[in-house]
Amino acid sequence: MTNDLSSYAPLYRDALLNDVIPFWQTHSIDRTHGGFFTCLNRDGSVFDTDKFIWLQARQVWTFAMLYNRLPHFPAEQRESWLATAQHGADFLQKFGQAKGANLADNPWYFSLTQDGRPLVQPYNIFSDCFATMAFGQLSLATGNEQQAQLAEGTFRQILARQNNPKGQWSKAVDGTRPLKNFALPMILCNLALEIEHLLDQSLVEQTIDQCIHEVMDVFYDPTLGLIRENVTPEGQVSDSFEGRLLNPGHAIEAMWFIMDLARRRNDRSLMERAVKITLDTLNYAWDNEFGGILYFMDAKGYPPQQLEWDQKLWWVHVETLISLLKGYRLTGNTDCLTWFGRVHDYTWAHFPDPEHGEWFGYLNRRGEVLLPLKGGKWKGCYHIPRALFQCWQLLEEK
Amino acid sequence: MTNDLSSYAPLYRDALLNDVIPFWQTHSIDRTHGGFFTCLNRDGSVFDTDKFIWLQARQVWTFAMLYNRLPHFPAEQRESWLATAQHGADFLQKFGQAKGANLADNPWYFSLTQDGRPLVQPYNIFSDCFATMAFGQLSLATGNEQQAQLAEGTFRQILARQNNPKGQWSKAVDGTRPLKNFALPMILCNLALEIEHLLDQSLVEQTIDQCIHEVMDVFYDPTLGLIRENVTPEGQVSDSFEGRLLNPGHAIEAMWFIMDLARRRNDRSLMERAVKITLDTLNYAWDNEFGGILYFMDAKGYPPQQLEWDQKLWWVHVETLISLLKGYRLTGNTDCLTWFGRVHDYTWAHFPDPEHGEWFGYLNRRGEVLLPLKGGKWKGCYHIPRALFQCWQLLEEK
Repeated sequence: MTNDLSSYAPLYRDALLNDVIPFWQTHSIDRTHGGFFTCLNRDGSVFDTDKFIWLQARQVWTFAMLYNRLPHFPAEQRESWLATAQHGADFLQKFGQAKGANLADNPWYFSLTQDGRPLVQPYNIFSDCFATMAFGQLSLATGNEQQAQLAEGTFRQILARQNNPKGQWSKAVDGTRPLKNFALPMILCNLALEIEHLLDQSLVEQTIDQCIHEVMDVFYDPTLGLIRENVTPEGQVSDSFEGRLLNPGHAIEAMWFIMDLARRRNDRSLMERAVKITLDTLNYAWDNEFGGILYFMDAKGYPPQQLEWDQKLWWVHVETLISLLKGYRLTGNTDCLTWFGRVHDYTWAHFPDPEHGEWFGYLNRRGEVLLPLKGGKWKGCYHIPRALFQCWQLLEEK
Repeated sequence: MTNDLSSYAPLYRDALLNDVIPFWQTHSIDRTHGGFFTCLNRDGSVFDTDKFIWLQARQVWTFAMLYNRLPHFPAEQRESWLATAQHGADFLQKFGQAKGANLADNPWYFSLTQDGRPLVQPYNIFSDCFATMAFGQLSLATGNEQQAQLAEGTFRQILARQNNPKGQWSKAVDGTRPLKNFALPMILCNLALEIEHLLDQSLVEQTIDQCIHEVMDVFYDPTLGLIRENVTPEGQVSDSFEGRLLNPGHAIEAMWFIMDLARRRNDRSLMERAVKITLDTLNYAWDNEFGGILYFMDAKGYPPQQLEWDQKLWWVHVETLISLLKGYRLTGNTDCLTWFGRVHDYTWAHFPDPEHGEWFGYLNRRGEVLLPLKGGKWKGCYHIPRALFQCWQLLEEK
């Protein structure tokens, strides 16, 4: 890995603009019922028409983000991105929300049929998180007040639900072993900045304070030197399957959210802590036998419940690339560069599909393709384009 | 594969009596809080103390079944089996059930802490199914009226819940895409015979009629030639992830339940249909590249949602051995013998642990050990000893 990072930039930029984004624009638009198809075979053909709110919203976000972040690109190209984002947003706005008992209680379904009928109840608070991101980013592009209000209102619902996110769908018996999960504070780190333009400054700062505390003090276990996926409400270790669970990709992704907050506050110590956790997690979770980053681990080395624990997933690897480049740009720590070289090589050797374009999502431990899909229930137009964009920008930084 | 099947019998008998059963008697008994540890490392040491009702009940059943089915074995050995079954039953009786709104509504929790506090709500009707099996089988051994009533009462609760088994914990929006699942009618085929001694003959016959119809006419898809895991309430195909899902191990296990019912009714045509479905499913789901039976498949060949789809699981293989031997004994179809040889060779080459005894549960597609555990959240003292027992008996039949 040389320090001439800018030589890598065209690879990331071209993959984004000439491969990944056109793939989704070509194959995912449902011109009959609106919204996006996300269950795409290797060649882009649609194999299932269900519409998952996570992925509908994430794709809206991706296209709106490109429109907002690349203001000097040709108008025709930008307008097509904005039209794609608006196409998804229209579908979401029309069909995505359940109607709650009162006007301020309109949680987002988990999934819909192709024509927008609700399939799976709003049990999953991340549907709301990604809807907030989508409408927040889109409202930046359009200035549309209704979109802005939808983002802000959904964000307030998330805050109201955050201590009992699963509500009636929780299977845990109250009180026996209460646990809180890392994913929500982690996402809120990112969400607070995403919709900063729509919130009171005091709410933004308060949310950021709370998120940094939760991620870096509560879920980070200093004895273990890693972030746990679940802890007790008091932030203590639970010696249970959930309490021992490590999700290295989650932890590493959260670190670039924290780096963004640290840069915003010009907090050098926080930057360095986030870089250290990134590197320590990578050292722990890198598969020395076959390469790549393991999906799940048990903090005591016991067998995890997740049968997919040893698989190599697209999002884990591309989020790691962002954290390493951001960490290097912020702190100059050259271990970030060494690791970037290793993860970059693994990622580009295994995930892109040289035949049909776009990237595979699910590899087995050996790095062989486990599922040939380009999109499904969980993989859509999000992690890869976001990472390609972020890495491209970071690589070009002077 | 020769026709001298009896030469295989000692292998199955000895593994059962000298390896698997002693392993669980040595390592799984919780002498402090009662019940069984099921989360056991490769060497039998306990790595987690949670108690899952499925596995508690299944282990009670296994030990009571051995007591009941081997009446000529030494009294000391049989009494130790009965004591083990009773040890688990005491724990289950004390802590296993939630108290419902009325006396007849006491569904079984999904899991408990080591000392019996409820952890996960009674969302899973199979907890009730295995509790019924456990107390039905145990009551045969003890003649205990309370145990008999617990089995019968739980069975009636299952029938009452069968059209809405998940109740309040279902995430499906009512009416959009109603589906019914194969697992419950499949288990009821077996359960009806398990507790026949406790039920009115008319309820037994009615349940059997219904189960045979559901399994062989409703879930079996004649166009596909295979059993689907989910169909519409009217028994039609749903072109969705759930509707396309195939679970070959489930289908093959159900076939020996059907063979038992066919033998009971002396229904030659039903026996032959069950054998044909067993063989057709094996032909479809056998992994020609690495050997073994795949865990999940999509009826249209699309990517399944289950990331563990290509793994080789213990229960799938040992249940298949039962169906093949039972099918051969009932019909004389020599294709069953050919397949038995192939599955027997794969199973014995990959699952037993030559170093610490008992069997591995989870192999990757190549047949390498994926998780070194002997027991966990889903693997306990059940499929392997039941299959070793059944195969031993079938191999010795004249």
